[in-house]
Amino acid sequence: MSHLENVLNALGNRTEVSLSELIEFASIPSVSAQPAHKPDMERAAAWLSERLKRAGLQTVERWPTAGHPAVYAEYLEAGEDAPTLLVYGHYDVQPPDPLEKWDTPPFTPTVKGERLYGRGVSDDKGPLLLTVQVVDAYLSTHGQLPLNLKFLFEGEEEVGSKHLNDLVAQNVGRLKADFVLSADGGMWSAETPSLTVGARGLAALELTVRGPGKDLHSGRHGGSVHNPLHALATLIAGLHDEAGRVTVPGFYDGIAELTSPQRDGIRQLPFTDEAYLTQTGAPAVYGESGYSTLERQWHRPTLEVNGMWGGYTGEGTKTVLPAEAHAKISCRLVPGQEPGRIAALLRQHLEDKLPPGVTLEVHGSDHGARAYHLPEGHPGAVVARDVLAGLYGVAPLDVGMGGSIPVLETFQSVLGLDTVFFSFAVGDEDIHAPNEFFRIPRLYEGQKAWAQFWWTLAEKRQP
Amino acid sequence: MSHLENVLNALGNRTEVSLSELIEFASIPSVSAQPAHKPDMERAAAWLSERLKRAGLQTVERWPTAGHPAVYAEYLEAGEDAPTLLVYGHYDVQPPDPLEKWDTPPFTPTVKGERLYGRGVSDDKGPLLLTVQVVDAYLSTHGQLPLNLKFLFEGEEEVGSKHLNDLVAQNVGRLKADFVLSADGGMWSAETPSLTVGARGLAALELTVRGPGKDLHSGRHGGSVHNPLHALATLIAGLHDEAGRVTVPGFYDGIAELTSPQRDGIRQLPFTDEAYLTQTGAPAVYGESGYSTLERQWHRPTLEVNGMWGGYTGEGTKTVLPAEAHAKISCRLVPGQEPGRIAALLRQHLEDKLPPGVTLEVHGSDHGARAYHLPEGHPGAVVARDVLAGLYGVAPLDVGMGGSIPVLETFQSVLGLDTVFFSFAVGDEDIHAPNEFFRIPRLYEGQKAWAQFWWTLAEKRQP
Repeated sequence: MSHLENVLNALGNRTEVSLSELIEFASIPSVSAQPAHKPDMERAAAWLSERLKRAGLQTVERWPTAGHPAVYAEYLEAGEDAPTLLVYGHYDVQPPDPLEKWDTPPFTPTVKGERLYGRGVSDDKGPLLLTVQVVDAYLSTHGQLPLNLKFLFEGEEEVGSKHLNDLVAQNVGRLKADFVLSADGGMWSAETPSLTVGARGLAALELTVRGPGKDLHSGRHGGSVHNPLHALATLIAGLHDEAGRVTVPGFYDGIAELTSPQRDGIRQLPFTDEAYLTQTGAPAVYGESGYSTLERQWHRPTLEVNGMWGGYTGEGTKTVLPAEAHAKISCRLVPGQEPGRIAALLRQHLEDKLPPGVTLEVHGSDHGARAYHLPEGHPGAVVARDVLAGLYGVAPLDVGMGGSIPVLETFQSVLGLDTVFFSFAVGDEDIHAPNEFFRIPRLYEGQKAWAQFWWTLAEKRQP
Repeated sequence: MSHLENVLNALGNRTEVSLSELIEFASIPSVSAQPAHKPDMERAAAWLSERLKRAGLQTVERWPTAGHPAVYAEYLEAGEDAPTLLVYGHYDVQPPDPLEKWDTPPFTPTVKGERLYGRGVSDDKGPLLLTVQVVDAYLSTHGQLPLNLKFLFEGEEEVGSKHLNDLVAQNVGRLKADFVLSADGGMWSAETPSLTVGARGLAALELTVRGPGKDLHSGRHGGSVHNPLHALATLIAGLHDEAGRVTVPGFYDGIAELTSPQRDGIRQLPFTDEAYLTQTGAPAVYGESGYSTLERQWHRPTLEVNGMWGGYTGEGTKTVLPAEAHAKISCRLVPGQEPGRIAALLRQHLEDKLPPGVTLEVHGSDHGARAYHLPEGHPGAVVARDVLAGLYGVAPLDVGMGGSIPVLETFQSVLGLDTVFFSFAVGDEDIHAPNEFFRIPRLYEGQKAWAQFWWTLAEKRQP
């Protein structure tokens, strides 16, 4: 029996333990966006460090940042001739709101059939943890790994990886690798393996519209001063035209039109709007006219309001004309769009279009990332395609990603490294929404794939 | 010394007790809109009943409704030849949100100089309580009142007086009176006494815009389904045109234009936009073009969004494309507008203008009231003008009221009674807003005025 087969057998014998470890990890409410969860972030980092040590890694470090710490670990004993990979993932999770929409408590991971429900199980604790479990299997069966590995697990992915750029810049030497293999991301579907070859970027900001100096009685004052909620609605409504295009001047500058091969490739994918509507529960698809749904998701930039609020939002009636109204906006970017420039254009547009009788305050967000595209024929992509084809019996699809991983930009610009996505999450697992889940069989499938990826990459390097 | 002078002296000797009673009353968080405060509503009703009994009234009753109870009391010993007044007020208060904007806790009434700060002190606990204290002064000094009084203090004014219509209809016989004297309302300014001769009506509804069946990741899905927040903003933005007019077809039907005497009267009032902006802190006046600020407040209908919310509204960033967006809307009405018809027109308009890719649910609100106007030369208005002129040394102004008191409609249609407003609250006391306050000297001024009003009305009846 080969070395790899022993590792796969060991993993096959440990599936229950693997799952119970994930349940334990996902029970820690490591919500990076909410200061109240700071102690939980520390607990999650400590749990992860401990698990890395237990896997047999000698070097496990807590890398502090101005925000939440990253966890770093390395294995360099494969020698200078072996490949070196930087494995990326994140142990922080999205806030669980709205809590009342969860069928089971978000931080009490719950098994139902072949699914594990809980915040963060799919994004990104399950996909992250399985990489550590593969290390454990290699080291416990043979005492060695076929390649050098560096693990960088951050705690701020869900808040825009604010401090990762600095952290990476401070550790350029230690993070040297051939490329990044990311445990974050997500596959096309549970049935069809896929390789993500691009991701949209992100620019975000928050705005506050102010009217009167204090909340007023809407009976007494209604109609005599501008209601900030009306002004905000006017601003937001004006951000798209009737064709679904963003109205911010310059927003589409520098973007390449989709090529015929790109459009053909997308048309051949097993995707229908009907199935998509069933999956999302939306009554209709909607977006920039002239593009199909997947073209909009992967190749066109968007502007979305993520939150909007003001006035009385509780039960019953309160006839108030509020002093303030708020909105959070994020844009998804495609190659050619610079996050800082897009944020500045949006800010300028909001100022230009501000209705009379109110003032505007725009808070920039650090949440920014350029779009990314994996070069054709990248060695990591080749191995990934081989492994996935072997595991699932069909050639994986090349797909785009509507979402953003700001670290792609960091790894590219600071370390000069490409990133290969190799996550075993699936795009329909309700990440960032209530009732997030992870498909339990994919924990073992992911382990097998990562074990094979490392083995295959190392084999290819052999003379 | 006359009977009235003894009463006024007694009140003058009790100003500290009067204030401490108000502090006690306003410490009870009787928020009618929030189910959690139901026990506090009961406590407030019990406190008020006890105070009415202590004032010497023999008949004090708790009148249950399907919602919060009303407190009823009567004094009928002045005989059939004496006038009979129905005194109206409410012991419920607005929710205190946003709590963080209060300088002192809303239900820990706090004296600062000549002001008492706390939720409900001005609307309507102070103005209500002083009427009971005047009864106390009459009965404790002379054992009798110069007229018959019926007190109806309700607990649902801040939620649209939902059950008062039924309650009044069930008690038509017992509530028979010459007219209603209202402790609710508010005066023009602390310096210039005023008599409110009209009030706007109200129609309200709440809407929910639904898109996807669950919250989606705005990166993955942004641009491919309609964001309910965008659709809501478009709906809200479309409710007014650039001239500040409501766009709902039929909204202005049946409304009389302002007459030249009305416009002249308003122009002569001591009011400037500059002072109004200083008071409200708004950067500019804003509203329906072609009308002055007071014309807009008193004689023109309005449509205001009182609350709007959806998506992630907490700290930090959550890139969500939410399943739902919500808004609460209320319209202030003028004579000629029927609340039910206006709500139906608004609902129809929202349905007609609904953007594609979302669905709409409109929740009707029971919150409806016609506009009101006190007839010229009403005997209660004549006495009120006399008393105010004597107390303040200047003739009171005739003013309108932007807000609504739904009970006006009830008293008019069910009992056939006009309502004279005789509240000693002032319009700038931040009712329905943080840091609501009541001017402490006006507690005694109000007591004197009510004592004189009753005395004068009874005297005029003498043959």
